[in-house]
Amino acid sequence: MTSPFRFQIEARDGRARRGRIFTPRGEIRTPAFMPVGTAATVKAMMPESVAATGADIILGNTYHLMLRPGAERIDRLGGLHRFMNWGKPILTDSGGFQVMSLAELRKLTEEGVRFSSHVDGSRHLLTPESSMEIQRQLGSDIVMAFDECTPYPADERTARQSMELSMRWALRSREAFGDRPGHALFGIQQGSVYPELRAESAEKLTAIGFEGYAIGGLAVGEGQDQMFGVLDYAPGMLPEDRPRYLMGVGKPDDIVGAVERGVDMFDCVLPTRSGRTGQAFTRRGPVNIKNARHAEDPRPLDPDCSCPCCAAYSRAYLHHVFKAGEIIASMLMTWHNLHYYQELMAGLRRAIGEGRLTAYAAAFHAQRAEEDIEPI
Amino acid sequence: MTSPFRFQIEARDGRARRGRIFTPRGEIRTPAFMPVGTAATVKAMMPESVAATGADIILGNTYHLMLRPGAERIDRLGGLHRFMNWGKPILTDSGGFQVMSLAELRKLTEEGVRFSSHVDGSRHLLTPESSMEIQRQLGSDIVMAFDECTPYPADERTARQSMELSMRWALRSREAFGDRPGHALFGIQQGSVYPELRAESAEKLTAIGFEGYAIGGLAVGEGQDQMFGVLDYAPGMLPEDRPRYLMGVGKPDDIVGAVERGVDMFDCVLPTRSGRTGQAFTRRGPVNIKNARHAEDPRPLDPDCSCPCCAAYSRAYLHHVFKAGEIIASMLMTWHNLHYYQELMAGLRRAIGEGRLTAYAAAFHAQRAEEDIEPI
Repeated sequence: MTSPFRFQIEARDGRARRGRIFTPRGEIRTPAFMPVGTAATVKAMMPESVAATGADIILGNTYHLMLRPGAERIDRLGGLHRFMNWGKPILTDSGGFQVMSLAELRKLTEEGVRFSSHVDGSRHLLTPESSMEIQRQLGSDIVMAFDECTPYPADERTARQSMELSMRWALRSREAFGDRPGHALFGIQQGSVYPELRAESAEKLTAIGFEGYAIGGLAVGEGQDQMFGVLDYAPGMLPEDRPRYLMGVGKPDDIVGAVERGVDMFDCVLPTRSGRTGQAFTRRGPVNIKNARHAEDPRPLDPDCSCPCCAAYSRAYLHHVFKAGEIIASMLMTWHNLHYYQELMAGLRRAIGEGRLTAYAAAFHAQRAEEDIEPI
Repeated sequence: MTSPFRFQIEARDGRARRGRIFTPRGEIRTPAFMPVGTAATVKAMMPESVAATGADIILGNTYHLMLRPGAERIDRLGGLHRFMNWGKPILTDSGGFQVMSLAELRKLTEEGVRFSSHVDGSRHLLTPESSMEIQRQLGSDIVMAFDECTPYPADERTARQSMELSMRWALRSREAFGDRPGHALFGIQQGSVYPELRAESAEKLTAIGFEGYAIGGLAVGEGQDQMFGVLDYAPGMLPEDRPRYLMGVGKPDDIVGAVERGVDMFDCVLPTRSGRTGQAFTRRGPVNIKNARHAEDPRPLDPDCSCPCCAAYSRAYLHHVFKAGEIIASMLMTWHNLHYYQELMAGLRRAIGEGRLTAYAAAFHAQRAEEDIEPI
């Protein structure tokens, strides 16, 4: 019998892989980009519009949802999929990262993290066990192990202590997760920028055994060179036959470089957040729609884009509605950016399938250098 | 040859009429409700979603558009329809009402109104002639004559002076409008709550001749009783064979009562603005989604509603996203409210066609009294 959750690699090109994750809620084509739906909504998007961009899976934030509206409430209302009207797979993070970046009065111990809610000041304890329970209540398809995202920079001793704590928490997460057919638990590799720590983390995780493996502790301020430096070796330490997920990444060129280095899954707030602040991603680089030079420009954001925003709206219109503070500015720009990201992923998948990823990446970098570049 | 703009009455029930306005951009089924698209967007809605609610026509605000992004710019970009991606008819107001309510340093003379922009302080002059030119640049299908909306309350002498000024401006509007086949110019009746002034205004407008007639100076604080008092006689003073438009109205029961009194067209910000502030219109009365009693309610806003919001989202979800300040709260609640308004209009049209408007109105009032009433 085939497991209801499994990963199948369909093509390889260098270290890159094209594949498919099968879940009871549908297939996820990899390399995959997961739009972020923090508070049970991908901001400014109807869920059917998110699906129309080509997204097979979205990410939900355990920290936000446990505080508001509460995981038990979502459970009583039939789970997160039903609550937010998204029938395809959902991956939830463990809450660990956001507790450390958003919560107040944090106290980290071997047990877990005690903190105060940034919403109402209420006291909470998040542990591997409670994180697994909350993610179960949410009905998440891909559950992330509870870990500590090692801050950057960290000296080797600090990075080791942090990684070892995360590995003990990974084991507790696995044990607490239990047997949930059709649902997957992903372990998270830590070790900062130290190859021996990354290797040790990978060994410990593999010994425990997970349905997929994330590369954690990157995209935390180390810069693309350092990140690619780690990605030159870290993915290869993880089991070949399981999906590899680079958490919180990233800019389009980060994703292209990470796919070339063997990463299968990504999530990032950049396309959605940038959409709301007037930044668009295009084939020729970023466009800042607030810039006065767009005020009477009849062209779409990207003439090669097939999204509803580029099909019907001029830069002049987007400039106007953005300046006027209209909600449709966020709606259209977010839609365009998510569409851009999904077209990028589709292009990468095609290129891997046809064995021409190197040429695809070169064309990607060359086209962006042509014109229209604005700092984002 | 049939005019490209014409009004056809298809059924009558008491003083109420069901009809159809034919325009080169499509038909408008009356009684019609026009969602307000102030700044080239019906706030929080994609235009195709506005159309999906059943809207045949929307309203644009001349005052807002002339200041930002500017009517000449919209003209150069191909007109308002293309700019905002709405291919169906658009009615624009004359700017007169909003100049008096929103602009700064206003000075009203026989010539028109001088004022400072509330956006950037720039000085402008709006006259019957410039209002016609701006509405032409916007590409409006139904152009409103430039008038002064008589403030309420006004003594008879003040109301007469204001009405007479508006009638002189109506003539100048007609002359400046010129010959524009397929585009209509509507005159606006004034006269406050004085029957003889309303009659005199109607006579003057009819003598000039317009493609349609608005009833102005209502919904300005006089209350429903006073408004219905005027509507008991004012529509009957206007030409029987032309559409009658009650500007800025209103609440659902205002609309029902006005349709019973012979009004064919309406516009109001209430469904869109209420959507953004968490107020929903339902068959059983208004619902305030901010109310804590909805926090775990799995029911839709209105179980009898077929809109995308009621089809897929619980009150609990709407409560959550509203409290979390998520954009989708405005999107879903606005969609529901516009859908409710259009279903109300469709119900009124059906009832008129079947000669049972009185029963329809009675059922409308009875159902709203049943339960779930919250102050809006």
